[in-house]
Amino acid sequence: MSDFRFELLATDGAARRGRLHTAHGPVDTPAFMPVGTAATVKAMSADMLRAAGAQIVLANAYHLMLRPGAERVERLGGLHRFMAWPGPILIDSGGFQVMSLAARRQIDEDGVVFSSHLDGSRHALTPERCMEIQHQLDATVTMVLDECPAWPIGRDEAAASMRRSMRWAARCRSAWRERPGYGLFGIVQGSVDPELRRESAGRLVEIGFDGYAIGGLAVGETKPMMFETVEVTCDALPVERPRYLMGVGKPADLVGAIARGVDMFDCVLPTRSGRTGQAWTRSGPLNLRNARHADDPAPLDRGCACPACRDHSRAYLRHLVRCNEILGAMLLTWHNLHFYQHLMAGMRAAIEHGTFQAWRTAFAAGLTSPED
Amino acid sequence: MSDFRFELLATDGAARRGRLHTAHGPVDTPAFMPVGTAATVKAMSADMLRAAGAQIVLANAYHLMLRPGAERVERLGGLHRFMAWPGPILIDSGGFQVMSLAARRQIDEDGVVFSSHLDGSRHALTPERCMEIQHQLDATVTMVLDECPAWPIGRDEAAASMRRSMRWAARCRSAWRERPGYGLFGIVQGSVDPELRRESAGRLVEIGFDGYAIGGLAVGETKPMMFETVEVTCDALPVERPRYLMGVGKPADLVGAIARGVDMFDCVLPTRSGRTGQAWTRSGPLNLRNARHADDPAPLDRGCACPACRDHSRAYLRHLVRCNEILGAMLLTWHNLHFYQHLMAGMRAAIEHGTFQAWRTAFAAGLTSPED
Repeated sequence: MSDFRFELLATDGAARRGRLHTAHGPVDTPAFMPVGTAATVKAMSADMLRAAGAQIVLANAYHLMLRPGAERVERLGGLHRFMAWPGPILIDSGGFQVMSLAARRQIDEDGVVFSSHLDGSRHALTPERCMEIQHQLDATVTMVLDECPAWPIGRDEAAASMRRSMRWAARCRSAWRERPGYGLFGIVQGSVDPELRRESAGRLVEIGFDGYAIGGLAVGETKPMMFETVEVTCDALPVERPRYLMGVGKPADLVGAIARGVDMFDCVLPTRSGRTGQAWTRSGPLNLRNARHADDPAPLDRGCACPACRDHSRAYLRHLVRCNEILGAMLLTWHNLHFYQHLMAGMRAAIEHGTFQAWRTAFAAGLTSPED
Repeated sequence: MSDFRFELLATDGAARRGRLHTAHGPVDTPAFMPVGTAATVKAMSADMLRAAGAQIVLANAYHLMLRPGAERVERLGGLHRFMAWPGPILIDSGGFQVMSLAARRQIDEDGVVFSSHLDGSRHALTPERCMEIQHQLDATVTMVLDECPAWPIGRDEAAASMRRSMRWAARCRSAWRERPGYGLFGIVQGSVDPELRRESAGRLVEIGFDGYAIGGLAVGETKPMMFETVEVTCDALPVERPRYLMGVGKPADLVGAIARGVDMFDCVLPTRSGRTGQAWTRSGPLNLRNARHADDPAPLDRGCACPACRDHSRAYLRHLVRCNEILGAMLLTWHNLHFYQHLMAGMRAAIEHGTFQAWRTAFAAGLTSPED
């Protein structure tokens, strides 16, 4: 089994082209990870995911510990086998979901106790239990448990929360069971405060992780705040480790973050918007509920090779969306993921060839529909 | 373009092995047609349908005339192109849907006026308009407009309704625009009365159709009544034309009807039950919501080559169903259609080899779960 390591293949300004080697295969970076919350990327089979170009998927410890249960997944041979995805899986620790989904949360130094959003049952999540769950699930990349404070937050509160997350990160590092080809990522916190971000990054690097995530962004702060924080954080992280911006984002966000040195991303946007009739294209998002598509024989995106664009008209896709047909969710999710993966491949090639700035300019010029 | 014709390849008792030649390719019979109500077989792409073994799909004129509209589908190049299904499409006339879905129906000799179940808008359907709609949709097989009376029904009412349907059938025959490789099917009515069925079949044969459907069954009558009516009707139909039993059914119903000389079927059962967590297997139906599957690493059906059985455990499928994941509907629909197509292929081979009775006995012996 290969070691877990990050190979930096090329840089172009701050943008990086790399490859993450794992026990379950390589991941070319910059990489976008489709979100497979409950052991399935919604409306996609594993075959469809591979065809769309995905090399790694994300799953959620919070959802899986509640349903079907981490012990059960372990008994069934681990998450790769359970969801028929032999490639790498990064598992989110559950810190964010506990804050955004669970009810009656009590957080203290030991960890968090919460009620399931499904049936109200009480559960405890400590850094040690979190590592155990991800081990049971067989995460290729395990994420530390962190506290995800709500936005906006005062500086003192942000500092206290970040420091607790750093103590939890150290406990995670101790509890995590190392295996060849498997990795553990720390998560930088500290809201949008550059000093807190630098402190957090420094503490994590001191503990030592296989990769570093940037958490606590895309929670309501402005875009300039987000990008500034990404820049400050990337500058404080070691060159030889992958950097993962959690929960981001729109195509332009990915481009902006890659320009600042980020290597990995996850976001529900392409999958969720695929289920609500929104398609992503080089010129911006397209709402297929719009009546102007009703008679349009053109494909969604002329340059796209996905099955939705290859086989169907906008008129057909609109019809499916309007009728709430499952095939509409399937085709638009496939297209959106294909578009995201194609976008990443384009940026990887541009960084390799030293033409990322030109690529970025062309991308911005091509956006004819505003993204927001 | 080839002529529309039915080739009878072999018989075994009353069971028939045939091939329907159409402008859009051949259909091996006995054939099961997946139901693609609104220009999509729910939760299946055209590629998935082909992989599951389907050669022909059914669509509904009623649904398509309301949404997206037959004129629109025609402008977009017809239904085959619209739904990316180049193979044969049989289009149900809408008679059954008008009775089962539409509100404020008024039926007279001319046709039916009804309110859409979607938005209450008023629509008229005459035999002539029905032929026009199916022409616009580009139906490979067009079905005549018939009146589908509710069950139970008195003999006089059944006779009057059947005779009106026969007058409509004659008007459909006159209005239908013949094209090479395209066919028009009449529909035998007459409830469960053998004399009325024989009268109906005789009138249709006199008019002359490319195939004959048996309508008005599977509406509440008992199984013995249904099979007796199928037998009486098949006996009254010409050997050289295909026979299509509409809206049937469960695997054992297909077997019983094929034994009595039926060639074609459609039913929402495999697709609808795939969306509610029910899987069909040789030993009977399986409810994946049942907790006994929660830890079961075995595939749904050991002998099955579909992706759900090839890649996944019952435990995973149950998890998807329990979480209402779209992938659950996709995989179970795929499995159910694959199972139905595999069942038909098995019967076709048995009829060819003159071993249909042995096949039927083995099928009945294999049913360990009751189907009802």
